Amino acid sequence: MSYIEELVGLLGSERVTTNPTVLEHHSHDESYHTPHLPEVVVFPQTAEEVSKIMKFANEKRIAVTPFGMGSSLEGHVIPYKGGISMDFSLMNQVLEVRPQDFLVRVQPGVTRMQLNKELKKHGLFFSVDPGADATVGGMAATNASGTTSVRYGVMRDNVRDLEVVLADGRIIRTGSMTAKSSSGYHLTGLFVGSEGTLGAFTELTLRVYGIPEATMAARASFPTVQDAVNTVVDILSAGIPVARIELVDERSIRQVNLFKETDYPESPTLFIEFHGSEQSLQHDIEFAQGIAGEHGCTQFLFETDSKARAQLWDARHNMAYAFVHKSPGKKMMVTDVCVPFSELADAIVNAREAIDRSGLDGAILGHVGDGNYHVILMIDLNDKDEVARADKLNAHLVEYALQRGGTCTGEHGVGIGKMKYQRKEHGAALDVMQSFKQVLDPNGILNPGKIFG
Amino acid sequence: MSYIEELVGLLGSERVTTNPTVLEHHSHDESYHTPHLPEVVVFPQTAEEVSKIMKFANEKRIAVTPFGMGSSLEGHVIPYKGGISMDFSLMNQVLEVRPQDFLVRVQPGVTRMQLNKELKKHGLFFSVDPGADATVGGMAATNASGTTSVRYGVMRDNVRDLEVVLADGRIIRTGSMTAKSSSGYHLTGLFVGSEGTLGAFTELTLRVYGIPEATMAARASFPTVQDAVNTVVDILSAGIPVARIELVDERSIRQVNLFKETDYPESPTLFIEFHGSEQSLQHDIEFAQGIAGEHGCTQFLFETDSKARAQLWDARHNMAYAFVHKSPGKKMMVTDVCVPFSELADAIVNAREAIDRSGLDGAILGHVGDGNYHVILMIDLNDKDEVARADKLNAHLVEYALQRGGTCTGEHGVGIGKMKYQRKEHGAALDVMQSFKQVLDPNGILNPGKIFG
Repeated sequence: MSYIEELVGLLGSERVTTNPTVLEHHSHDESYHTPHLPEVVVFPQTAEEVSKIMKFANEKRIAVTPFGMGSSLEGHVIPYKGGISMDFSLMNQVLEVRPQDFLVRVQPGVTRMQLNKELKKHGLFFSVDPGADATVGGMAATNASGTTSVRYGVMRDNVRDLEVVLADGRIIRTGSMTAKSSSGYHLTGLFVGSEGTLGAFTELTLRVYGIPEATMAARASFPTVQDAVNTVVDILSAGIPVARIELVDERSIRQVNLFKETDYPESPTLFIEFHGSEQSLQHDIEFAQGIAGEHGCTQFLFETDSKARAQLWDARHNMAYAFVHKSPGKKMMVTDVCVPFSELADAIVNAREAIDRSGLDGAILGHVGDGNYHVILMIDLNDKDEVARADKLNAHLVEYALQRGGTCTGEHGVGIGKMKYQRKEHGAALDVMQSFKQVLDPNGILNPGKIFG
Repeated sequence: MSYIEELVGLLGSERVTTNPTVLEHHSHDESYHTPHLPEVVVFPQTAEEVSKIMKFANEKRIAVTPFGMGSSLEGHVIPYKGGISMDFSLMNQVLEVRPQDFLVRVQPGVTRMQLNKELKKHGLFFSVDPGADATVGGMAATNASGTTSVRYGVMRDNVRDLEVVLADGRIIRTGSMTAKSSSGYHLTGLFVGSEGTLGAFTELTLRVYGIPEATMAARASFPTVQDAVNTVVDILSAGIPVARIELVDERSIRQVNLFKETDYPESPTLFIEFHGSEQSLQHDIEFAQGIAGEHGCTQFLFETDSKARAQLWDARHNMAYAFVHKSPGKKMMVTDVCVPFSELADAIVNAREAIDRSGLDGAILGHVGDGNYHVILMIDLNDKDEVARADKLNAHLVEYALQRGGTCTGEHGVGIGKMKYQRKEHGAALDVMQSFKQVLDPNGILNPGKIFG
């Protein structure tokens, strides 16, 4: 009897499949990394089923790769060792909303937008917004963040408790429902960002927030990237609680204008969002506008109405598409370094020079409040020279960041794309990480070939 | 040659001592737990020296217990296995202030007040305030917090990077200087709160904040604990960014009046602090006062002047003393449970009933924004019955909290006092913690007998 038949014995035939279309769907993510088929896809419905599958796979030394929505950006969910792709789409229940505790208990297959739809009924929202409608399980696995982390923190800040199934089938809880704890080692923070290499999440308790009374959006254009970043420094130093603050560089605005036939000022642009009371927003926006003016801001627009806000941010939302659309047949490679805030302006200027030197087409957008910025490159995977130039550019950006106290990945995670930088970034600490991996997954069945190679 | 003579060979005779007074100083903390002498106290000056001592102790299987200020509350620094007490008072330099990054690099022996004195020159402050003038190394080791965590987070939220010396002498860095990272396992969060059982910290990079433009303090009295807690719920739900919000119960205010001959209203009282601009504070205080009024507030006072603010909070500051002063010869036992916010009012009412039932004298104060509250008991350690009643009360409070998704310790840590509750709180996750301990400290030399027993 093949191991797949045994899996059918465990889960039933409907939730164990080798259907080619399903296998193909689980062979890739949204990145440029080479796809690889799993041997079988399973759809567990409970932690106990996940535990049974794990125990089985561990005994048989079969690779298990957890799969949410497949929206990862560094090959995280690609099952390079074949084996089992464990799809959590049937574990997609919002289990409990606790408005007074600002908490929600969910299954890992719940998506960000699904969760926010449910929370809206309670006047609450889940803050982490990586753009894609990822599952919360996947977001926790990569410690995702995005545009709102400057105000509300990253995924790790918003996961209060996890139920985790370990490689040997043990089911543990890593935290509690309290706002703080000094009891035992902080396993929650360790499992968040472990990219499926230490265990599979079967339940998450997440921190949520009250929907702000009012929201305001602004767009501000500047002569130089430094002017824009200095504006951000002054806004944050003054304690203005911006909810989002994004930078898009001049070249990227030009691409949007080409793509959308718009006439946005082709200069470094900040996209800002404010959350608060109507009264406080009035104060915040005036303050921000004043600071922007001191740094040579050439245009400052703001809107409160939901539709007008979306239009104001249109260039930001369309930036990736503007490049994708103009690059048929190419694949997107997104860099993800993060530097100390004080290094950001220089880093972005340096990145733009490096892109131009490489001869590649590339957008820059930055979660500037965090010191995190992306270079979005469109590359032809069949053009070896182009791939090599993109790799070299990526390596340059990482090297630049690491030399200045930065990290190779601010929010996308390591997957396979950032593996080669792990030793350089972490030094001897990488051995400590590997020893934890070894102790929890001695047979190496959990998402093998990721983070450590 | 004794191992102490060998240590002298490593560090020189001036920084290795068996002086009885020094040994005695390193035999206890501020808790009621039984003191125990170390065999020797060492005073390293560099990470390299710490590494040398560790390697030596690891080879000889000698216990090493890191020591900061000795202000721990659960016996953390008491060297029950004798051996080496490693005192970090000579590693007390503020190494670098990076105002634009809101970061500071410090050695572990720097104290909270020393750090704030230095930061003040840059218009910055370090937010974590556990009351005692602890060292930042000790605060990181216990994941300390205190009155300000409702706004600025706990120690773990504010440690960006650690240099750690492991049991075998390896020196690692756990993080980076960036605001966020998804690179590798989150070791920083794991080492914070590990209570000296996984390694010794030799450098910390900490998040700091701009000193607020204005500060306002308030004191509000309520008919019942529920009214006070409901006020907190509404204030926090409305997004009023209070910097501190503390509850003191009726019995405790009465004790302060007895001790200080004051006439504070003997009813549940909230002590609040607001940080912001003068304009925003005006708005915040009016809003808070309005909410308090809706919940039956009988007296609401507020002050901006620094001296007047201190006076307004006088009853809060004096509460512990009021009990200590009236209980000569007794030792303080402080409980530290934390519950989900929605459970807090009931938990405090239940705690007061349990204290009264126990026949012990006890204050209740709560970091109510976090769901964390302390019962401060004065006990005669020679009175076995009293000790037994205090233990029983503590166990009752922990049991109550754990049944409601809470934790046995919100901010003091496990040490030896909360060890007996670890299995109940963490279940199978405790085995995972122990496996990490085993892999990093196979000879069990690091602060033995803590957390796991």
